[in-house]
Amino acid sequence: MPHVRGSLPRDAVRELDLASLAAHSDAVGGTRIALVAFAGMTLLDLVGPLDALSRIASMGFDPTTTCEVVAMTRLAGEGASQGAVWSAFGAELRAERYRPELASFDVVVVPGGPGTRALEADAEALAWLGAFPANRLVASVCTGSLLLGAVGRLRGRRATTHASMLAELPRFGAVVARERVVDEGQLVTSGGVTAGLDLGLHLVARLAGDEARAAISAQMELPVGR
Amino acid sequence: MPHVRGSLPRDAVRELDLASLAAHSDAVGGTRIALVAFAGMTLLDLVGPLDALSRIASMGFDPTTTCEVVAMTRLAGEGASQGAVWSAFGAELRAERYRPELASFDVVVVPGGPGTRALEADAEALAWLGAFPANRLVASVCTGSLLLGAVGRLRGRRATTHASMLAELPRFGAVVARERVVDEGQLVTSGGVTAGLDLGLHLVARLAGDEARAAISAQMELPVGR
Repeated sequence: MPHVRGSLPRDAVRELDLASLAAHSDAVGGTRIALVAFAGMTLLDLVGPLDALSRIASMGFDPTTTCEVVAMTRLAGEGASQGAVWSAFGAELRAERYRPELASFDVVVVPGGPGTRALEADAEALAWLGAFPANRLVASVCTGSLLLGAVGRLRGRRATTHASMLAELPRFGAVVARERVVDEGQLVTSGGVTAGLDLGLHLVARLAGDEARAAISAQMELPVGR
Repeated sequence: MPHVRGSLPRDAVRELDLASLAAHSDAVGGTRIALVAFAGMTLLDLVGPLDALSRIASMGFDPTTTCEVVAMTRLAGEGASQGAVWSAFGAELRAERYRPELASFDVVVVPGGPGTRALEADAEALAWLGAFPANRLVASVCTGSLLLGAVGRLRGRRATTHASMLAELPRFGAVVARERVVDEGQLVTSGGVTAGLDLGLHLVARLAGDEARAAISAQMELPVGR
């Protein structure tokens, strides 16, 4: 459980009887990462960290680490399960699961985008996000941090967001940090849009180590825009 | 038509009668950009340049410039029009249009990914891509350049791809270039995965100028991974 600092979450430990131990060499399953998608998100905010994080498994560093895109919003008239979570440029991204219980994940990543404004005022959406256990690792890209603020995750913590929105952070009790990635333990926020790539690599290092980070960064052919 | 170097494509010019000229202050419509999506693409290869290019309009540099994600592949059993073009991590990207005529676009961007292997052997897919007029601007990210090679676009030109695949380029008659973005006029290739962000910004500069590039790069909060 490299993503946990401090005490181990109670529900991360399964109770096993002694007779079955041999069949459970690794009783705690691989790290389960959720990426929260919603209408009006900036697609790159989600796809940047997804690309980096999904390589923990695909490049063999830990095949048990899984990524899942889950829907925080859906279109009116959609079925109960599926969510249409992004639509633009003649294309549409859909997630299989609409608001699955976040307690079944170890890490939650929240992207930003203009859609965060509506979600900040959506009590049901915030209740869903806020139910993610406070002792687990939550991360944001760009204005995704405003949603974390709206569920009380930033209170008294250092945090960042898109440069143009830093002034929004104090109303959530956050201490503004003008840094690319701000690691406060079980809370990691990052700057605008492409900072999601740095966030992804930072989380790779936390979850799978510095060697994985270096190899994944090389495979993704970073850095960008120098 | 800042994306055209050399002679103006015949079909970029509409015939107008003199009486109607006043109503056609800009007889040539805005730049139409297609981003080609397919099963087995690396999603970030498409989303990186899409983010940069879509900001030409959304940030007001040229509201007539449009981006469209078009499907090069679809699932068996899909309807004639729609394409399911990417699926992974409990999510699915769909495009409204499956193989629309590429001649209706000014710029085509081809991402890479493991799916290029199958497409290199798919005569119908290549015929569709190869029908994009040779005098217009075509660009690739990562192994997308292998598809451009398969339709003869790289012959005698400098080109690049993901670092691990550079040795594939000579079989298409290309001259290998170990650079992040290789601009050969109406052919622009770029390196692996995140090089698509650099490609996007390079095309922004070509299509909308250096000022647009600088502002869009700042809004996206580049650079990444320093």
